[in-house]
Amino acid sequence: MTTVAAYAVPAAKAPLERTTIKRREVREFDVLIDIKFAGICHSDIHQAQEGWGEAIFPMVPGHEIAGVVSEVGSGVTKFAVGDRVGVGCLVDSCRECENCKAGLEQHCTGGNVGTYNAIGKDGEPTYGGYSEKVVVDENFVVGIPEGLSLDVAAPLLCAGITTYSPLRHWGAGPGKKVAVIGLGGLGHMGVKIAHALGAEVTVLSQSLRKKDDGLKLGADHYYATSDPKTFQELAGTFDIILSTVSAPLDFGAYLSLLKTGGALVNVGAPEEPIALNLFSLIGGNKTLAGSMIGGIAETQEMLDFCAAHGLGSEIELIEASQINEAYDRVVSSDVRYRFVIDTATI
Amino acid sequence: MTTVAAYAVPAAKAPLERTTIKRREVREFDVLIDIKFAGICHSDIHQAQEGWGEAIFPMVPGHEIAGVVSEVGSGVTKFAVGDRVGVGCLVDSCRECENCKAGLEQHCTGGNVGTYNAIGKDGEPTYGGYSEKVVVDENFVVGIPEGLSLDVAAPLLCAGITTYSPLRHWGAGPGKKVAVIGLGGLGHMGVKIAHALGAEVTVLSQSLRKKDDGLKLGADHYYATSDPKTFQELAGTFDIILSTVSAPLDFGAYLSLLKTGGALVNVGAPEEPIALNLFSLIGGNKTLAGSMIGGIAETQEMLDFCAAHGLGSEIELIEASQINEAYDRVVSSDVRYRFVIDTATI
Repeated sequence: MTTVAAYAVPAAKAPLERTTIKRREVREFDVLIDIKFAGICHSDIHQAQEGWGEAIFPMVPGHEIAGVVSEVGSGVTKFAVGDRVGVGCLVDSCRECENCKAGLEQHCTGGNVGTYNAIGKDGEPTYGGYSEKVVVDENFVVGIPEGLSLDVAAPLLCAGITTYSPLRHWGAGPGKKVAVIGLGGLGHMGVKIAHALGAEVTVLSQSLRKKDDGLKLGADHYYATSDPKTFQELAGTFDIILSTVSAPLDFGAYLSLLKTGGALVNVGAPEEPIALNLFSLIGGNKTLAGSMIGGIAETQEMLDFCAAHGLGSEIELIEASQINEAYDRVVSSDVRYRFVIDTATI
Repeated sequence: MTTVAAYAVPAAKAPLERTTIKRREVREFDVLIDIKFAGICHSDIHQAQEGWGEAIFPMVPGHEIAGVVSEVGSGVTKFAVGDRVGVGCLVDSCRECENCKAGLEQHCTGGNVGTYNAIGKDGEPTYGGYSEKVVVDENFVVGIPEGLSLDVAAPLLCAGITTYSPLRHWGAGPGKKVAVIGLGGLGHMGVKIAHALGAEVTVLSQSLRKKDDGLKLGADHYYATSDPKTFQELAGTFDIILSTVSAPLDFGAYLSLLKTGGALVNVGAPEEPIALNLFSLIGGNKTLAGSMIGGIAETQEMLDFCAAHGLGSEIELIEASQINEAYDRVVSSDVRYRFVIDTATI
């Protein structure tokens, strides 16, 4: 066991504090990663505040991890010391179920292991990326290609794959019109990726406050959803709408913006049930879908795609001492577009 | 103009009565059809009772029409006198919009024309299949292949295409597990078609009352949804669930029966909005979709498929004088599985 410095939430809703945690010894198939950067995802905050149910404390959040390999186990074949690597939302899964075999480890039915706020197969709690080092089985580590800086790569491990996977699955590409609801951590990556895939991209945001940003990020159009004319003007326009927000939307209104056969895919979602008239799906052969992160192989594919297209996250680099302040700013949507912790400051 | 006998609803919610209506002269691209059989669809009743909004009276319902061509216009190339033909829910569309060009006339954005309870491009109301004859543009007529009796073919024009189209779109076939919710007019065709497509078929019905029928129709399994154990036992089972019912279901419970990546497709739907927690879509990359009948070319494809597999509707043949009684029985789900009017009795 190795003792490393980390920032942890000592109890539900408590502020994060500097502490130390134990990392396991490097096993046969393990990789020891010197963490360089860790993104702050809104779901870190949900979990730290037990908004998604009972959680494990102390909690070291962080599932957007970028770093460098500093040691490998004797059986490791995929990585070598010095490799630039990333870790996302998962550090293990059953590896035997239909989903694991299909590369959908995020939907493992045998029980996968979250990067933090989970119990590993060894019975020990997992701790995330707000720390100096982490030990992860090589099968849950991905390579960060040259040309992609580690700081802007870190958020891709969650925000990147969460938007890339559904955009690919639902066919975003040349000739397709894609709308992205919300221009936050997820949404800004959705815009970048949809644009790089060749789609015509429209941002649907509450206001036009971030319009200049949106167009710079790759959007072709930018509309305010607070303006009812938006829904008249864009009726029947989109092949794909990617909703990245957790606000309770008028889904009937958004579904009316789809073309016949179009899909509205949710990667964000309100905690409460929505009201949906199914005729808004039937009239137009439409689809309301959900998507959750992505599998390990697809995460590597996404990183390779982002590197090839020069896509990183827009980030605001912070010191570890600023995490609590950053949390408050994420909650009030005051971030463009992802806080990333420089873990050298822990 | 030709005067023909018909059964009509004189005013909203009134019983049907025998009457006469005018059919237009056969124009250049028209086909005159001697109607032999007309199916009774639940949507006939919804419209007769103005359950779907203001309707046009007198109304001659019927959009499941099978008959024989008795005259063709000078420009008609697709059909000849003596041909066995069908007409479904549409008798015209704009033919110019993106959907019409894609063979999705049912989603015509330029304004399509329903077989009844609609106004044709000539400004005259359309009248449906509960009558002796109908005049239809050849582009909205389909051929009924030899080997398919006209009486059991009639319901395919709505119930057949409504289930065939989504089953094909969502990939029902060998190796796929398909559930059909509800064993009524639509559901029983869903079972037959899914089975013929090669899928493993399960009926999800409120009770086991029709289990023997379901298995005879092609289902491999039959479960009662009134039994909570059904939802435990079938969790994560299906690639596709086709809901043919209009009852307000617990959609979260049904979505839990889908495999990762599965789709629940609605061809029936409750009139009121449903409550849906979007996490039931996100956790499992699932899809809630809708589908509305099908285009003309796909309707022909469906008829050819049904003929090749010997699939007709299970019907109860009635005389025209029994229509009102049949309506009452449809409303109380007392039909196995489609009433078909022998139009010789009008």
